[in-house]
Amino acid sequence: MDNLKQCIEETLSEIKNHLENGIIGFWQKNGIDEEYGGYLTCFDNEGEPSGDTDKYIVTQTRMIWGFSALYNQYPEKKELLQQAKQGVEFFIRYFWDNENGGWFWKVKGDGATIDKGKVVYGQSFAIYALSEYVKASGDSLALEYVEKTFDLLQKYCVDTLRGGYYENLEPDWSLSEPGFAAGDRKSLDIHMHIMEAYTTLVQITGKEIHKRRLQEVIDIILKKMVNHEHGCGLNQFDLDFNPIPAINIRRTWNAERATGETIEIPTDTTSYGHNVELAWLLDRAAEALGKPFGIYNEIVQKLVDHSLKYGFDYLLGGVYRDGTHNGPALVYDKEWWQNAEVLIGYLDAFERLEDEKYFNAFYKTWKFDYKYFIDENLGEWHQLLDKEGNVIVGDIGNPWKAIYHTGRSMLECSNRLQKLRSRI
Amino acid sequence: MDNLKQCIEETLSEIKNHLENGIIGFWQKNGIDEEYGGYLTCFDNEGEPSGDTDKYIVTQTRMIWGFSALYNQYPEKKELLQQAKQGVEFFIRYFWDNENGGWFWKVKGDGATIDKGKVVYGQSFAIYALSEYVKASGDSLALEYVEKTFDLLQKYCVDTLRGGYYENLEPDWSLSEPGFAAGDRKSLDIHMHIMEAYTTLVQITGKEIHKRRLQEVIDIILKKMVNHEHGCGLNQFDLDFNPIPAINIRRTWNAERATGETIEIPTDTTSYGHNVELAWLLDRAAEALGKPFGIYNEIVQKLVDHSLKYGFDYLLGGVYRDGTHNGPALVYDKEWWQNAEVLIGYLDAFERLEDEKYFNAFYKTWKFDYKYFIDENLGEWHQLLDKEGNVIVGDIGNPWKAIYHTGRSMLECSNRLQKLRSRI
Repeated sequence: MDNLKQCIEETLSEIKNHLENGIIGFWQKNGIDEEYGGYLTCFDNEGEPSGDTDKYIVTQTRMIWGFSALYNQYPEKKELLQQAKQGVEFFIRYFWDNENGGWFWKVKGDGATIDKGKVVYGQSFAIYALSEYVKASGDSLALEYVEKTFDLLQKYCVDTLRGGYYENLEPDWSLSEPGFAAGDRKSLDIHMHIMEAYTTLVQITGKEIHKRRLQEVIDIILKKMVNHEHGCGLNQFDLDFNPIPAINIRRTWNAERATGETIEIPTDTTSYGHNVELAWLLDRAAEALGKPFGIYNEIVQKLVDHSLKYGFDYLLGGVYRDGTHNGPALVYDKEWWQNAEVLIGYLDAFERLEDEKYFNAFYKTWKFDYKYFIDENLGEWHQLLDKEGNVIVGDIGNPWKAIYHTGRSMLECSNRLQKLRSRI
Repeated sequence: MDNLKQCIEETLSEIKNHLENGIIGFWQKNGIDEEYGGYLTCFDNEGEPSGDTDKYIVTQTRMIWGFSALYNQYPEKKELLQQAKQGVEFFIRYFWDNENGGWFWKVKGDGATIDKGKVVYGQSFAIYALSEYVKASGDSLALEYVEKTFDLLQKYCVDTLRGGYYENLEPDWSLSEPGFAAGDRKSLDIHMHIMEAYTTLVQITGKEIHKRRLQEVIDIILKKMVNHEHGCGLNQFDLDFNPIPAINIRRTWNAERATGETIEIPTDTTSYGHNVELAWLLDRAAEALGKPFGIYNEIVQKLVDHSLKYGFDYLLGGVYRDGTHNGPALVYDKEWWQNAEVLIGYLDAFERLEDEKYFNAFYKTWKFDYKYFIDENLGEWHQLLDKEGNVIVGDIGNPWKAIYHTGRSMLECSNRLQKLRSRI
């Protein structure tokens, strides 16, 4: 255990340092839009503004979440709360749809409306971010918006015939067309982020209906969206939850980013990082519901082991991007968010399953991340690398990449490592 | 066709007369609570007050619906609107839950709260009644309560895991316990009345979300709650829609009435009158959604034919109470509401399927009803008869029996007969 102890000390120190002096610093310095309020999230390989100043619900809420969560961790850094607050104010002023209720998809830098579309992915992040902000601030207006958003999801987005949620809706909350507008699709991704959002919601309200809806979305994911035989998540589904080949849906990252990457084609493609993220978010959800420790261990272990069996780079560390359910990876690129999320998931699995292979996977991945993803001078991560760590997409920030995956990973890992240290 | 023409004239005259001089008169004279507002609905075999002055959501809303629908039919009878209005005022003042939202199950005659339980059956009737009142009055406050009730059903009652609605909830909208409180059951009855309520809701708002939810509940009923092989409705289900043996659920009629009747025991019991009511309500729902005429003819025909095959009294007219899916009736008593609803359903089937056997079934049932159920002096129907027409339960009104089934049947039949007359 000596070696383990030493590895914990070492990674804890690196991670805390990267969080406190890297990530927090970078986003405090560069991420606040001093002119219009809200956040700037688009930065190139060198950390310079890339010119895109449009504001997306996804990254605005993720920044609110980040500053709030960091303030909850470091309450002495009072400016973090202020930095969250100004983001909340911008968000409510310019993203809230006063006509139809709910949040817009995209506005200009100054808040002028661009796209009033109602995407459940975005609405979920609004709940997640504002709930974390309520934790930080106790703000009653933010809480009111959280409750309103939850109620609107129930009113407009639930599929009362088949269960689950419609995911893509138009500005007036009518269903989007079939096809690339995806009014006829459901996905693990969005249902997982609903679970994530409801978890924080339950933490702040404790209400029966919020707990009930959290339990239901957990059960949807476990019953309809996960392959229990192979231990991996499926991707896209028709409204009846039949798996169907994934497409690039409008108003998603894949549809909006232009890279040379291979887009997943086979129906059964699965994402290692997403699966491990699902595992720890599931544990967090169970905790919020007051369930016994380890209640989801069976599926958690399967999800994490699947990534270690098929998606892990045992030579350099880190997980590949995508693969089939029960065979080798198909895309060997390494994506920042996957390699941030698995850090948490592997530590979570180590805590629950007490097998050192999970700690080793964490350790190896962190070493890869630290060496290749993280630009220590800038204090943030690049977006996409090849297997060996060469930069493919260097973005430090973009409309989908901000403080959430990296900041959350460092926050979660430093807390988890401290807990581990105190137990060993 | 001469004989048909004559039968139409004859029944139209009798039915209009019974409606205008019987039903309207009885309830105008006896049904208004001049002391406290709202409605009195409990009358014995002689039409005398039976002493029960508690007010139930079911009959209060049914009376609101009745006076509103009758006013919509007879706008020259201005007092009908006033009689609806005072009922709406009582209902909003004493039944609305200012703490949790939604409507109470039961209050005392003076409005004092007895049971704050939230039963979807009752909430649905609130939507149905207030929507009909909005048609009559254009009242914006009533419309506001309709919308609020709809929103609360979406928030608290939808089962987002399996689809459909939880039906029995506590005062704070938490799920009732399993067993006789039936938090773990779903039923055709309640889903049918949700469909009925949303139909009138769609008529008054035309909103996409109301149409979407109406279509979904239609599909739930047709996909999960009807036996398409035999053409009959099932009764009770577990939350996953597996049919289960019916029990007497708390806060339902069967649990509250004390008669010597046989309670349905076999899992596969079906109600002839309920099935035929479902058929015409389905046609009305399709009409509200702007669907092609006859779109549900296949199942409508099956449902109506099932009642004619197994549940119809070809000697005296009328339908029996209950039977198995594909065998003879089990309970030969005749219930007022079934023998009121099938009148509409048989005329509806005649209009759609153009087979005179449906008109004949209507005609024969009406003759039985007119002779045995209806007390012409009083102007209303008795509750329960045996096969030959002898009174078993003579109630003219009770906590579950008021103007809705009888008044609606006479209203629908007189309109349908007039339409038929003009076409022949």
